[in-house]
Amino acid sequence: MHSIGELRTIVNRTFDAVSFSHEPAELYDPVVYTMNLGGKRIRPLLVLLGCDLFEGNLEHATPAMLAIELFHNFTLVHDDIMDLAPIRRGKETVYKKWNSNIAILSGDTMFAMACEYISGSDPMILPALLKVFTQTARNVCEGQQLDMNFESSDKVDLADYLEMIRLKTAVLLGCGLELGSMIAGASPAESRKLYSFGENIGLAFQLQDDLLDAFGDEKKFGKEIGGDILTHKKTFLFLKALELATGKEKSELELCFSGKPVPPAEKIRRVMTVYETLKIKEITQKEIEKYFSLATGFSREIKIPADRKKILEEFAMELLHRDY
Amino acid sequence: MHSIGELRTIVNRTFDAVSFSHEPAELYDPVVYTMNLGGKRIRPLLVLLGCDLFEGNLEHATPAMLAIELFHNFTLVHDDIMDLAPIRRGKETVYKKWNSNIAILSGDTMFAMACEYISGSDPMILPALLKVFTQTARNVCEGQQLDMNFESSDKVDLADYLEMIRLKTAVLLGCGLELGSMIAGASPAESRKLYSFGENIGLAFQLQDDLLDAFGDEKKFGKEIGGDILTHKKTFLFLKALELATGKEKSELELCFSGKPVPPAEKIRRVMTVYETLKIKEITQKEIEKYFSLATGFSREIKIPADRKKILEEFAMELLHRDY
Repeated sequence: MHSIGELRTIVNRTFDAVSFSHEPAELYDPVVYTMNLGGKRIRPLLVLLGCDLFEGNLEHATPAMLAIELFHNFTLVHDDIMDLAPIRRGKETVYKKWNSNIAILSGDTMFAMACEYISGSDPMILPALLKVFTQTARNVCEGQQLDMNFESSDKVDLADYLEMIRLKTAVLLGCGLELGSMIAGASPAESRKLYSFGENIGLAFQLQDDLLDAFGDEKKFGKEIGGDILTHKKTFLFLKALELATGKEKSELELCFSGKPVPPAEKIRRVMTVYETLKIKEITQKEIEKYFSLATGFSREIKIPADRKKILEEFAMELLHRDY
Repeated sequence: MHSIGELRTIVNRTFDAVSFSHEPAELYDPVVYTMNLGGKRIRPLLVLLGCDLFEGNLEHATPAMLAIELFHNFTLVHDDIMDLAPIRRGKETVYKKWNSNIAILSGDTMFAMACEYISGSDPMILPALLKVFTQTARNVCEGQQLDMNFESSDKVDLADYLEMIRLKTAVLLGCGLELGSMIAGASPAESRKLYSFGENIGLAFQLQDDLLDAFGDEKKFGKEIGGDILTHKKTFLFLKALELATGKEKSELELCFSGKPVPPAEKIRRVMTVYETLKIKEITQKEIEKYFSLATGFSREIKIPADRKKILEEFAMELLHRDY
């Protein structure tokens, strides 16, 4: 079994050895740009980790590693158009740097390339890999749609929100681990447990992201604190607060998220006061722990040696206990 | 061997039996809408035809038929955003009826569904099918990119144009026939000949489309004649005319395609006069015949009985000799 650091080295070596550049340049330049934006490549790392947990040949995981990262980046390129996001990983987004048409089409191309790469996997397990991969791809689209629906809906509850982040974020982490374990020859039942581990870690990971946006250390977090409050994002924190709030707190939340003009710094301060009164930080931390413990419940059931499991759980801890 | 009419019935029965409706409705309603817009379903018909030519089990072609039509419609939904096209098949395009974000995301979903469907093909030939399908998918994206490049470039020649329509249109017709023949168990060499047949018919088909836009019968064609001239589209007709024109004809073409204000009816009349002087209609018809004859050259080499070949060639004739 390799350490996470060793697996990370293999991931980076794999991506360094591949060229995403083809003709016409207008189509593939944005692909190369996006793939070199310096993402953390967590999903291919999960593929490799899933494969290594079951003592698979790590070289066999290359097609799935490339596919999942291309797919993930394709969704980011398209999401950034939909969300009008100008910056991604500190650089201009594709639609800003080029234009929407280029972003649509090079995103489509990345999806096609992802399908092309995964098709190069071992033919014996290809149908099973594709079933997981294409189902997950649809789930991610469904999650993005729910996210867009929430923006214009005033009837979003916590269950809706959790289902949205499950589809939009968590399933792809589960998918990475599952694909890796399938490539190593794990049984469908074992692979599915690893999927569930990843899915629950994914939920915890997204809730942690919500938490850091309000309670993180600005310097380590790398972006301004309170962004979700200013954009009226219906995060776990907001929805939980809305569920618990009565009287003054409820009207404060409703006012601050109503679109009525409140100066930014004041808006953040007023919402944070409500969050503190209602102990939203502690409640969210508990929820994160709940999903973390659901995840470890699945990992306990997986039939692999304890030292391997330890690496899996340590990696999950590392993902979650970041304060950036 | 079935007649084309019988194959058409099977295609329609196959699509009628499938529901593209899922949750969330905001995502899948546009998929259902697009798939029911009343397209001619030529690509799934080609899959079925390719399969029948090699005496394959037509039921085995269902996943590829659904995949190729979903893929084709996905490209139309995204192309319509890029081209700002308000109408498709006489109805509002997805981005007009809903909005661009919905069109991007439901297009992505159709692509994911296409990959999901084709993955349900016979596992023994799945790697080979996917290789053709994903390569073609990328080609189609590349063709659309070249088409967009041409709009802003003043250095497009006939060879560039033919390469663009080959990628954007012709390869997918070849792909349909090739997938069908592979499903029937044809050898790679025979399948590739059928692909080349389809690709050349596709080129002829697109040139015929260019021709009808200028010289078609308005009633049968279903849209106004001269649309390509009014939108300054660099079609085969225009590029050939530009290649041949000197003196007065050349300046007429350049003026009419320069963006200088010329009343629509006058612009069409003036460009058509140049086309007639330069015998562009006859030259284009010759070019169409050239590709048709290249196609039949490939079909002659395919090792199947003559009566089967006859159906293939008759279908190609039918595709081309439409005057609508």
